[in-house]
Amino acid sequence: MPKVSADHLQARRRQILDGARLSFARHGYEGATVRVLEEEIGLSRGAIFHHFPDKDALFLALAVDDAEAMLETVAQHGLVQVMREMVAAPDAGRLGTQLEIARRLRTDPEFRIAWAPKLAELADAVRARLRRQRDAGLLREGVDIDQLANYLELIMEGLIAHLAAGQPADRLGGVLDLVELSVRGQ
Amino acid sequence: MPKVSADHLQARRRQILDGARLSFARHGYEGATVRVLEEEIGLSRGAIFHHFPDKDALFLALAVDDAEAMLETVAQHGLVQVMREMVAAPDAGRLGTQLEIARRLRTDPEFRIAWAPKLAELADAVRARLRRQRDAGLLREGVDIDQLANYLELIMEGLIAHLAAGQPADRLGGVLDLVELSVRGQ
Repeated sequence: MPKVSADHLQARRRQILDGARLSFARHGYEGATVRVLEEEIGLSRGAIFHHFPDKDALFLALAVDDAEAMLETVAQHGLVQVMREMVAAPDAGRLGTQLEIARRLRTDPEFRIAWAPKLAELADAVRARLRRQRDAGLLREGVDIDQLANYLELIMEGLIAHLAAGQPADRLGGVLDLVELSVRGQ
Repeated sequence: MPKVSADHLQARRRQILDGARLSFARHGYEGATVRVLEEEIGLSRGAIFHHFPDKDALFLALAVDDAEAMLETVAQHGLVQVMREMVAAPDAGRLGTQLEIARRLRTDPEFRIAWAPKLAELADAVRARLRRQRDAGLLREGVDIDQLANYLELIMEGLIAHLAAGQPADRLGGVLDLVELSVRGQ
């Protein structure tokens, strides 16, 4: 494929995924009708579904995309930074995707099996980051890595539930500061 | 009313509420059909609805009951103890009621208004307990009471979401130990 076409294709896919992410964040997965998708993406349904076979494929592409981005953020800055980004932009961020993932994990055994490797990757990344922090002397002592990881994961679940219920995000920055201090043992 | 009758009435109401709590915990509010209620309570629908006009009244009586019990636990032992009790018996405890309250707060504006005083009472109790702990020198320094309360409330939301998703409770005891240490600044 000529480079210009490949770039164009890439940009078009990006445009579609960005619009779809906004749609899911603002309307939920069910509420993101084809009409909503057309409006948020700025393309016709024909153009959208030329690139992705259906809404489910759009969701899965976003879920994989977000999982990759989260893995990178976790590796570089830790899980608290992922939460800070969700708090900073609950509307435009990964909340819609995360909620739909959580719903499918609860209700769809096939998805649960298909998604297990991604969850394991993320869990591993969180633990690897904590181990690096510990080796650098930046973690509280006397608590094991799994316990700290479970602690952070529980707070992430609380954060998603809190934002999903439409509750205010303004006090969560201070809460995450406290989480960070507690992980460091300060 | 003669004392024996009053005691009997009280015991009967207790039996109904205990069975209803189990029903909601095991089947969810929607899933707790009249048939399920009859089985878990061990009384006929006639006997049950002689004491409570309908399923909604049962739920509200339980919600008030649980709110009172939570207030008492918070005042004496703090919000972490409420969470420990939920973790110890996710199946038999307040999870069903808490989930239904959370759902109604999201979706039912009338309930939101009616329930606001209870939420405020609980929020006040959490803060009053934290202030007593601070005055006794048992809290971390440099963090304000609201920030600590918001922190505990976010973890409570995470706990409810975690248990509601049917995820294992076995690692949460260690997580709550860490929460307790972090509140104390240890």
